[in-house]
Amino acid sequence: MKQHGYRMKWWGWGREGVSFDLAHRQGIVDYLHEKFAVKEVIYQRDFNWRDVVLNASVISFSVREKLQNLLGENTVFSDDYERIIHAYGKSYRDAIRLRSLAIAQAPDVVVYPTNGEDLVKILALCEELQIAVVPFGGGTSVVGGLEALPLAGGVICVDLARMNRLVAIDETALYARVEAGKFGPELEEELNLRGYTLGHFPQSFEFSTLGGWAATRSAGQNSTHYGKIEDLVIGLTMVTPRGVVVLPAGTHQACGPDMKNILIGSEGVLGIITELCVKVSSLPPKKKYVSYFFPDFASAFTASRELLQNGIVPALIRISDEEETESMIKLNRKPARKLKRVLYALGFSYFHLMGFGAGKRVLMMVGFEGSRKENERMHSLVHEVFRRYRNLYVGSSIGKSWLKDRFFLPYLRDDFLNNGILIDTLETATTWEKIGDLHHRVIAAISSAFSQQGVNFSVFAHISHLYKEGASLYFTFVANQQKGRELAQWHEVKKAASEAIVAFGAPISHHHGVGLDHREYFLAALGEREKALLASLKNAYDPAGIMNPGKLL
Amino acid sequence: MKQHGYRMKWWGWGREGVSFDLAHRQGIVDYLHEKFAVKEVIYQRDFNWRDVVLNASVISFSVREKLQNLLGENTVFSDDYERIIHAYGKSYRDAIRLRSLAIAQAPDVVVYPTNGEDLVKILALCEELQIAVVPFGGGTSVVGGLEALPLAGGVICVDLARMNRLVAIDETALYARVEAGKFGPELEEELNLRGYTLGHFPQSFEFSTLGGWAATRSAGQNSTHYGKIEDLVIGLTMVTPRGVVVLPAGTHQACGPDMKNILIGSEGVLGIITELCVKVSSLPPKKKYVSYFFPDFASAFTASRELLQNGIVPALIRISDEEETESMIKLNRKPARKLKRVLYALGFSYFHLMGFGAGKRVLMMVGFEGSRKENERMHSLVHEVFRRYRNLYVGSSIGKSWLKDRFFLPYLRDDFLNNGILIDTLETATTWEKIGDLHHRVIAAISSAFSQQGVNFSVFAHISHLYKEGASLYFTFVANQQKGRELAQWHEVKKAASEAIVAFGAPISHHHGVGLDHREYFLAALGEREKALLASLKNAYDPAGIMNPGKLL
Repeated sequence: MKQHGYRMKWWGWGREGVSFDLAHRQGIVDYLHEKFAVKEVIYQRDFNWRDVVLNASVISFSVREKLQNLLGENTVFSDDYERIIHAYGKSYRDAIRLRSLAIAQAPDVVVYPTNGEDLVKILALCEELQIAVVPFGGGTSVVGGLEALPLAGGVICVDLARMNRLVAIDETALYARVEAGKFGPELEEELNLRGYTLGHFPQSFEFSTLGGWAATRSAGQNSTHYGKIEDLVIGLTMVTPRGVVVLPAGTHQACGPDMKNILIGSEGVLGIITELCVKVSSLPPKKKYVSYFFPDFASAFTASRELLQNGIVPALIRISDEEETESMIKLNRKPARKLKRVLYALGFSYFHLMGFGAGKRVLMMVGFEGSRKENERMHSLVHEVFRRYRNLYVGSSIGKSWLKDRFFLPYLRDDFLNNGILIDTLETATTWEKIGDLHHRVIAAISSAFSQQGVNFSVFAHISHLYKEGASLYFTFVANQQKGRELAQWHEVKKAASEAIVAFGAPISHHHGVGLDHREYFLAALGEREKALLASLKNAYDPAGIMNPGKLL
Repeated sequence: MKQHGYRMKWWGWGREGVSFDLAHRQGIVDYLHEKFAVKEVIYQRDFNWRDVVLNASVISFSVREKLQNLLGENTVFSDDYERIIHAYGKSYRDAIRLRSLAIAQAPDVVVYPTNGEDLVKILALCEELQIAVVPFGGGTSVVGGLEALPLAGGVICVDLARMNRLVAIDETALYARVEAGKFGPELEEELNLRGYTLGHFPQSFEFSTLGGWAATRSAGQNSTHYGKIEDLVIGLTMVTPRGVVVLPAGTHQACGPDMKNILIGSEGVLGIITELCVKVSSLPPKKKYVSYFFPDFASAFTASRELLQNGIVPALIRISDEEETESMIKLNRKPARKLKRVLYALGFSYFHLMGFGAGKRVLMMVGFEGSRKENERMHSLVHEVFRRYRNLYVGSSIGKSWLKDRFFLPYLRDDFLNNGILIDTLETATTWEKIGDLHHRVIAAISSAFSQQGVNFSVFAHISHLYKEGASLYFTFVANQQKGRELAQWHEVKKAASEAIVAFGAPISHHHGVGLDHREYFLAALGEREKALLASLKNAYDPAGIMNPGKLL
């Protein structure tokens, strides 16, 4: 199948055979040595799916036959490989469990429908037989959105990969009609050929689908400019156990509660999104990503806030806190050529001389995507605002390197795991007046949890999706794994961070979603009335409770 | 009560004692003569509320006493005047019925709560006694959103006018916390004093409230720049019969279906919005509204679309079709001074000479609100795009006159009614590729309905709320009333237009809402699944069905 080009290695992130290649990243090797006392770095590891022990499929031959009769030849699978690659997403928890080569609850059967009518039939059959249905896009959930929680009849995984047509582009109203199983790169490629872009680039971009983005309220790295997925979707179709919901492409209206915003973010618990109408934009001819050092996180985000509130909206703003800034510099790809390497080192001496040495700087990257003229103009508007703050313009080399690596960074987790290092991320958002406080509290909660464990650790954050009224905060934490209690260790830290977020009144996710991992905290933050409302939505479309059980609700 | 400054005349639009003053608008008088054969123009009419015959209040003294015990002195009214001013909104249907001096179903009692806790108690009592609850903001609904449909226990109107505090402004994240009963002018005045604006100016601005805007998914005249109310609200509180829902101020998140967009637009059927957090912007120092003539509607909206799709977003774009352009010119305030009047006439000769004579021009107004420099810059960006289209720049005098009259135009309906002339408006929206077709179809449907009635009529439209993907279409229709069948006549036309909109697949409203008048068409356009979803929402918050019965659902 063509789609398998977008399929990841079953046990970790990214393409089979591709890794972060630590051998060429001395900075990272040094970091592992110095910070985490890793003595002998393991550069490569591999796992064989044939070694995985998994639960037996409970779905009978006759049910498989029924499914095959509905969907046709070569659409229904219950072999180990298909079941393994559809068992989990790509969370830290998933990675640990996959590396243990044991899967307690893989889906019993995997189907690849090619159209919405087939899906209607599948859901009817599943309702009849009390089979849990897990919709599957690219399988990149980092919050346990895909993990099969079985009903009496077992679990069916519905992989949308064969519903991947770009149906049409309307070049007047600038929107595209696209089937939900379309993968990011294929969508962008086809849009680019016509001169357009969706402008939605989550870190999972290479391996995730449009339907998945909508189901989880995803945000792309350029969401500051293009908007989150809910801003890009202007129409959608969802197949539910109670029928097909069609919201035709349209613009704003005043006709009661907004259906679109009920279905977006529903994470498979109401139905399966099969088709979307999404706004597209002219493909920007040029990219220009520049960087600044600011003396501290607060002055950097205050300056960026001023941009947004004055209507200056670059394609990307990304502000690392002090600790993340140093980590990025350490982990950065060094120039290969000797002369460039010398210049690179000289640059850092210059930063130091200017008062922006290690620990005295935070990195802000600002991206412009437009014509050369538009980029120059936007850059000068940014400069004008930043002139009122102490900062140092450090040019475009960091931005270039980031653009090169931005979809590559997630590979690093596997290399870290190979070396006994825990690494995970989580994110939230708040309004500007509270962002410094929230940053502080989550860092403190994570630090305190690791301290209690007595492990070496590092925790840092960046701001990456900005709005007039607030922004997202994205945290990364790294630590020595506690051998034998890897999951318990992770859970303690995750719990500490999540409870701090909930106690603060901030959302448990800005763009990863709720899934299984956030459900407890999501529900803790909801009032009784909001819970009742969610339950009523579920009941309207999935009274038998077959859709992605245990997620969100 | 202070709030009564924002209360309108009970029988028509606007402040008591203020009218459009036809005596000084010879253009309109001529229009009535020429187009509608009005022989003797009636310049002024008044109605006395003491002449109105209305239904007896069915709510007993003991219930009124209970309410008074809950709410305190001077908060519970069942006198005729209070019941009359809360009986209807400001639709054509409402105006006709009020002028007949008979109200079949005024609310039985009107209460003025001052806080959310009182509201909780009121709703509990109403549920116990099966009393229908109609939330009331400014009373400007033009879709029958306020009309009391009684339950067994009668109808209570809950007027939010005393919950009108601007609680706080957060000057970092730029949002204000405001009670729902705050009227437009008071809100803007208080924000302006601090250097801010909400930027939300519906035509009802002077007499409508923030809570009403949110409950009906309102759009202001500058929504192209500031967004519709759903874009401005970042948090809200709603009191429902099943408890209080609090959505704290926040930004985007990825935590399931978006609650905010369920409560916004709920038109009182789920609960009563009591407080909102809304984004504010810096008060623009200068306004500059300029106009262009384009040779036809299609080339004008194509040029405007190009602006939006290139990220050029003025504070306002308003494009009148051919017929509306001529009507606006006819109805426009002529300069008072003789010299200016001569220049004005010369201007029109010039337009004619340039090929933009009557019938060969459509008017596009473009508004800029920012610093003088920003306005100049935006204007030059607009000019740059418009250079690719045939058009004539006609300066800023039309814009100035429009700004002066923009909240004044609704007064005109009463003058027209005084003279036996029907005038009403309706609106919808669609994506750009369909906008010409939708315009054509609705105009045809309205024209055909009037033609069958054999009356003189005029129907025209403008585009006024623009998005990258589409825009709203706002229709106005004027005709000689059919004496004795005023409501039937109106209903035929409304039905024809609404059916055309539904058949086209466009929403029955872009910013007026659904209410009673649009319910039938709204439901006709909804699928069974969407109806079930709405019913489930209603059931979650108002299982006894006391909230604004008969609206929306």
